[in-house]
Amino acid sequence: MSDLQGTLSEIVAALKAAGDRGKVADYIPELRTADPEMLGIAIAYIDGRLLSAGDASQAFSMQSVSKVFTLTLALGAFGDYLWDKVGREPSNEAFNSIAELERAKGVPRNPFVNAGALIVADLLLGSHQPRETIGEILRFVRFLADDGDIVVDERIARSERQTDFRNVALANFLAAFGNLRNTPERVLGVYAHHCAISLNCLQLAKAGTFLAKEGRNPSNGYAVVSAERARRINALMLTCGQYDGSGEFAFRVGLPAKSGVGGGILAIVPGVASIAVWSPGLDAHGNSQLGCAALERLAHCQGWSVFGAKP
Amino acid sequence: MSDLQGTLSEIVAALKAAGDRGKVADYIPELRTADPEMLGIAIAYIDGRLLSAGDASQAFSMQSVSKVFTLTLALGAFGDYLWDKVGREPSNEAFNSIAELERAKGVPRNPFVNAGALIVADLLLGSHQPRETIGEILRFVRFLADDGDIVVDERIARSERQTDFRNVALANFLAAFGNLRNTPERVLGVYAHHCAISLNCLQLAKAGTFLAKEGRNPSNGYAVVSAERARRINALMLTCGQYDGSGEFAFRVGLPAKSGVGGGILAIVPGVASIAVWSPGLDAHGNSQLGCAALERLAHCQGWSVFGAKP
Amino acid sequence: MSDLQGTLSEIVAALKAAGDRGKVADYIPELRTADPEMLGIAIAYIDGRLLSAGDASQAFSMQSVSKVFTLTLALGAFGDYLWDKVGREPSNEAFNSIAELERAKGVPRNPFVNAGALIVADLLLGSHQPRETIGEILRFVRFLADDGDIVVDERIARSERQTDFRNVALANFLAAFGNLRNTPERVLGVYAHHCAISLNCLQLAKAGTFLAKEGRNPSNGYAVVSAERARRINALMLTCGQYDGSGEFAFRVGLPAKSGVGGGILAIVPGVASIAVWSPGLDAHGNSQLGCAALERLAHCQGWSVFGAKP
Amino acid sequence: MSDLQGTLSEIVAALKAAGDRGKVADYIPELRTADPEMLGIAIAYIDGRLLSAGDASQAFSMQSVSKVFTLTLALGAFGDYLWDKVGREPSNEAFNSIAELERAKGVPRNPFVNAGALIVADLLLGSHQPRETIGEILRFVRFLADDGDIVVDERIARSERQTDFRNVALANFLAAFGNLRNTPERVLGVYAHHCAISLNCLQLAKAGTFLAKEGRNPSNGYAVVSAERARRINALMLTCGQYDGSGEFAFRVGLPAKSGVGGGILAIVPGVASIAVWSPGLDAHGNSQLGCAALERLAHCQGWSVFGAKP
Repeated sequence: MSDLQGTLSEIVAALKAAGDRGKVADYIPELRTADPEMLGIAIAYIDGRLLSAGDASQAFSMQSVSKVFTLTLALGAFGDYLWDKVGREPSNEAFNSIAELERAKGVPRNPFVNAGALIVADLLLGSHQPRETIGEILRFVRFLADDGDIVVDERIARSERQTDFRNVALANFLAAFGNLRNTPERVLGVYAHHCAISLNCLQLAKAGTFLAKEGRNPSNGYAVVSAERARRINALMLTCGQYDGSGEFAFRVGLPAKSGVGGGILAIVPGVASIAVWSPGLDAHGNSQLGCAALERLAHCQGWSVFGAKP
Repeated sequence: MSDLQGTLSEIVAALKAAGDRGKVADYIPELRTADPEMLGIAIAYIDGRLLSAGDASQAFSMQSVSKVFTLTLALGAFGDYLWDKVGREPSNEAFNSIAELERAKGVPRNPFVNAGALIVADLLLGSHQPRETIGEILRFVRFLADDGDIVVDERIARSERQTDFRNVALANFLAAFGNLRNTPERVLGVYAHHCAISLNCLQLAKAGTFLAKEGRNPSNGYAVVSAERARRINALMLTCGQYDGSGEFAFRVGLPAKSGVGGGILAIVPGVASIAVWSPGLDAHGNSQLGCAALERLAHCQGWSVFGAKP
Repeated sequence: MSDLQGTLSEIVAALKAAGDRGKVADYIPELRTADPEMLGIAIAYIDGRLLSAGDASQAFSMQSVSKVFTLTLALGAFGDYLWDKVGREPSNEAFNSIAELERAKGVPRNPFVNAGALIVADLLLGSHQPRETIGEILRFVRFLADDGDIVVDERIARSERQTDFRNVALANFLAAFGNLRNTPERVLGVYAHHCAISLNCLQLAKAGTFLAKEGRNPSNGYAVVSAERARRINALMLTCGQYDGSGEFAFRVGLPAKSGVGGGILAIVPGVASIAVWSPGLDAHGNSQLGCAALERLAHCQGWSVFGAKP
Repeated sequence: MSDLQGTLSEIVAALKAAGDRGKVADYIPELRTADPEMLGIAIAYIDGRLLSAGDASQAFSMQSVSKVFTLTLALGAFGDYLWDKVGREPSNEAFNSIAELERAKGVPRNPFVNAGALIVADLLLGSHQPRETIGEILRFVRFLADDGDIVVDERIARSERQTDFRNVALANFLAAFGNLRNTPERVLGVYAHHCAISLNCLQLAKAGTFLAKEGRNPSNGYAVVSAERARRINALMLTCGQYDGSGEFAFRVGLPAKSGVGGGILAIVPGVASIAVWSPGLDAHGNSQLGCAALERLAHCQGWSVFGAKP
C-alpha cells in the first residue's frame, strides 16, 4: 500500500512534466480558465482506504462524469423502461453528434452521449420542478461520497447555458421526435446543472465506490443498486464511457470509466476500488489526456484490468 | 462442479425447447443446411477440466470466430504495426458494411469486421502462398486445441467464394486505397479458408483457453502471447466481438466473446475458463441467438462477468 | 389561348377526381385544417396576360416558396458573399435534415433546404428588428405581385413557432458553428413569418414573373435582378427546389420550380410565363402531389420544358 | 457566325494561358500521360454547321461521357423498366462512392454515377457476349457521329481493368444485392470498353446533336429517340451529369452536360447545338477544369442557358 502511494506520486510527477497536456475545453467559457498543469488522482478502496496524489483536493467540474450518477438514479426510478428510450451501443460519432440521432429517429445510442443524457435528465425531471430534480441529483452524489460539501457551481451552469447551442439542437431534435416529456428548456436546465456539480478527486472516487463493490455503499454496506445493475453500469462505462475513444481506452486501460470535458475521469476496478483522476487538458475525443495516461500507467503497474485474472 | 454439469444440461434443455431459434445464415449456400435445433456448449477451465452439454461434439464452421486466432497470429508476427492498418473502435454498422470503410479512407474500424479481418489475412499472407498461410493458421488452431483432427472444410470455403460478393467488394475497396499487399483474390482465398475451419465446441473451448490464462497454454504453461496482449485481445472481443450488437452483449453477458455466422461463439472468463457455444440460428446482428441466450444464463448462474468481483 | 383555358380546366377537373391526393402537412398545427380537395392553378405570361382555373383565388400559406423571394432579396443585398455561407448543390436528405449540416460543418447545401433559408433570413435580418425585416420581405412580394393585399398570417406564424423543434435544432446548430449573426430565436421569428405569407395562385404567379422575363418586372419593365441572376435563381430552383425530389421533378416536368409544405408550387417557363399551382396534399418528399401532377400535365400539353426547343 | 469563330478562338487562347489547369486523372495509368495544355472545343449546330477551335481534332478517351450513349441505348431497349433498377436523383457523393449504394440497398442514385452505369451496362449486355455489346455501343456512337473511324482504345480499356478496384467493388456490391444479371467481371468488361471509346471534339459534338434536336438525327431527320426522351436525358445530364458538382455547373453554365475523367464534356443547347470540349486537367469533382471554364465563357457570350429566354 505504501508502495502504491509512491507509485501514484511518481505517476503524477512524471505526467506533470509531460510536454503535451491536451487542450482545455473552450466551448464552455467558464471552463477555459482551468489550468492544464493540474493533475490529481485518488483511489477509494472498497474497504474504505483512500490514497491520493497531486491536485486531488482541488475541485473541478464534473461535466459528463455526472451522467453515471443520473443514469444510476434513473435506472432506480424507471428500471428497464429507460431502455425503451435510449440504446446500449457504443457510438462512432462525437459526443455531441446529431447525425446519428437523426438516423436513429430520435433514439440516442446510449445514455452517455449528450442526447442520451438529456433523455435521462427528462425522465428524472418528470413532473417535478428543475430545482427539485437538480437537488435530488446533488443529494445522491453527496450521499455516495458521504460529503455534504459538494455543490453545483452556478457560474458554470449559467456559462454552459449561454453557449450550449449544440445541446439545444439535440434537445429540440428529441422533442421533434416526441421523445421528451418536458420542454427542451427545462431539460437543458437540469442537464447543465448536474454537469456543473463541482467536486474533487477524493470525493469523486468515494462517490463511485458502489460500482466497485457490487452496488453496495462501502461506508454502510447498504445496496445502492443491485449487483447485477452495478455490473451493467460498468459494462456501459466500458463500451460507451469515453465516447468514440471507448475502444481505444478499453484496449489500453481495460477498466470501465466515464470521462467529462472538465477533465475528470471515474474508473472502476470491480471488487477492488474506484479511481478518480483529473487534469483539464483534453485529447481529440474530449477525454482528459493526462488523466487517461495516468490511468493507463496505474492500471499497468497494479495489473488492474477487467480482462485478466484478478491479482 | 457436478452442479455446473447439471446447470449446463438444464440450460441446453430449456433453450432447445425455445420457440424462436433465429435464422440460419443463408448467404453461404453450404451453411443453409445447418439444423437450427442444434445447441452445444463446452467449458474449458484453465486447470484443464472440461465440461460440456448438448451437441458439443458436433463440428460446425468457425467463420468469424477464426478472426480471434488470425488476429493473435498477426499480432505475434507484426506487433503494433498492425494498428497502423486497422482501428480498435467498435463499429455501428453491420459486419460487412462498406460505407464506414469509405468514410475512413480504407482503414477498417477493427480487426473483427470483415474488412479488418481481410487486412489481417493479407498481413499473414505476406509473400507466402495462400496454401502455406492457410496451413499456418490451421496448425495454430490445432496446437491451441491440442487436437490434430481439426480441418478446413473445403466445401464451405468453395461455397463461400461463390457468393462472397460483399467481401470481394470490401477487398477491392481496400486495394483501391492501397491497403492490401496481395491481390484481392489471394487475400479472399485465405480469408474464406480460415473461416471454413471446422471444429466442435470442445475443441473451440480448448483453443481459446490461453485467453483466460493470461496468454498461457494451459496444457504446458508456455506463453502463447504475453499477458498484456491476451488482455488486449479480450478487450477487443468485448468492445467489437459481436459486431453492432457488442454493447448489448457486454450489457447482458459481460464477457469478452467473438461470434461467427456459423452459429459459434467463443467467450472468455478471465482467470477462470474459456466457453464455446454453438447453435446455427442467428439474430439480427448475425450472432447465434440460442448461443447468446445460453451464455447469458450461464454467466448469470455462475456470477461470471468481468464487470463484477470475482466469485 | 382559349384552348389553354380549356386545357387548364380539364387538368383541374381530372385531378380533382383523382383518388390519391397525398397527405396534408401535419407538423404545423394550423396547416392541418387545409382541405386536400382544393386545387388551383394560375399562369402569368410575361406580356401580362393571366389565366387560371380551380381554386386559384383561394389564399394559402406560402411556406418554402417564400425562400425564392428571400433568396432574391439577399442576393440583391449581399451578392456573391451569400455563397460563402451556403452551398449550391442539391441535397440527398430531407428538407429538415440536420445530419448533412453536421457533415458540412454548418454550411447548408443550398438556400432552399431549411438550414440554408435560415442563413438567408439571418443575413436579411442583419442588425434590423425582426419586424422590420418581415415587413421588407412582405413589401417585396407585394411589389412583385403588384398587390397590396398580400399579408402575413400571424396565426400560422405562431402555430409554426410552437412546434418547430427541428428548425430550432437547425438554427442552434448553425449558431454552434458561428454561422449566425443573430440569435436563433430572432432568426426563427423572421423565418416563420416569411413562411406564413398568405397569397393565392394568381398573386403568386404574378410575383414570380420576373424570373420568366430575364429578371424584369413585367408590369413596368424595370429590372428586379439582372438577367444573369434570374437565370441562376432558376438554376437553383431546378436542381434544389423540390428538395430530394428535385431530380425526379426535373425529369418529369422539366421546369425550374419551388414547392412549399402549404401545397403551393411556383414554376417558371423562361421567356414565356410563371405558373403557380396549389393543392395541400403532399407526397413523400413534402411537395404538393396534385400540384406536381398538374404541372406535369400542363408542361406536357404545352411542350414547356427547359430541356427542349422552345415552341 | 464568323464572330463566334473568333470568340471560340479567343476563349481557347485565353484559357490555354491560364495558370491552373487542374490535375490529370491518375487512377487509370494510361490516362496519366495526357497533356494538360490541350484544350479543344467544337460546336455542332442542329442545322449541320460545325465550328471548332484549339485541339478539336485530337482524340481523347470518352470515359463517363459514354454513359449518355449507353443510357440512350438502354432506354431504347428497356424503356422505363430501367428506372426500377436505378434512380433519377443527383448524388451528394463522389462518382465512385459506395456508401450511398449501401444505404440505398444496391439501387444507384442515377445512371451517371459509376454504379448506375454498371447497371446500364449489365442491361445492355443481357445474354449477349461482352464483345457483341461493346460492338453495339460503338456502332451507335459511330452512327450518331456519322463517322466510322471512332474506335475503342484497347490499351485504355486494359489499363482501366488493371486498377479499377473501386469499380470491382461497386459491381460486386450490386451483385450482392442481386441487382446484376451477369457476373461482375463481364459487366466490368463492357463498362471499361465503352469508357475507352476514343474520339475527338468534332466527333463528340456531332454524336450529341440528337439531344439538341428533340431526339432527331440532324443528318437525316430520323428520330433516334422521342422528343420527350431527349428532354429527359437532358434533364438527367443537368441534375446529375457533373457528379457532385452538378448544382454548381447548372448555376454557372446553365446547360445539360456530361463530363468524363478523360477531360471531355458534352453540353447541349436545346434547339440550337451540341458542344464538345476537352482538356485533360480535372477539378476536385473529376470534371475538366478548363472545359468547364470554356463552357461557362461560351454560354455567357452566346446567352446560352436553359434558364433564360432563347436569344
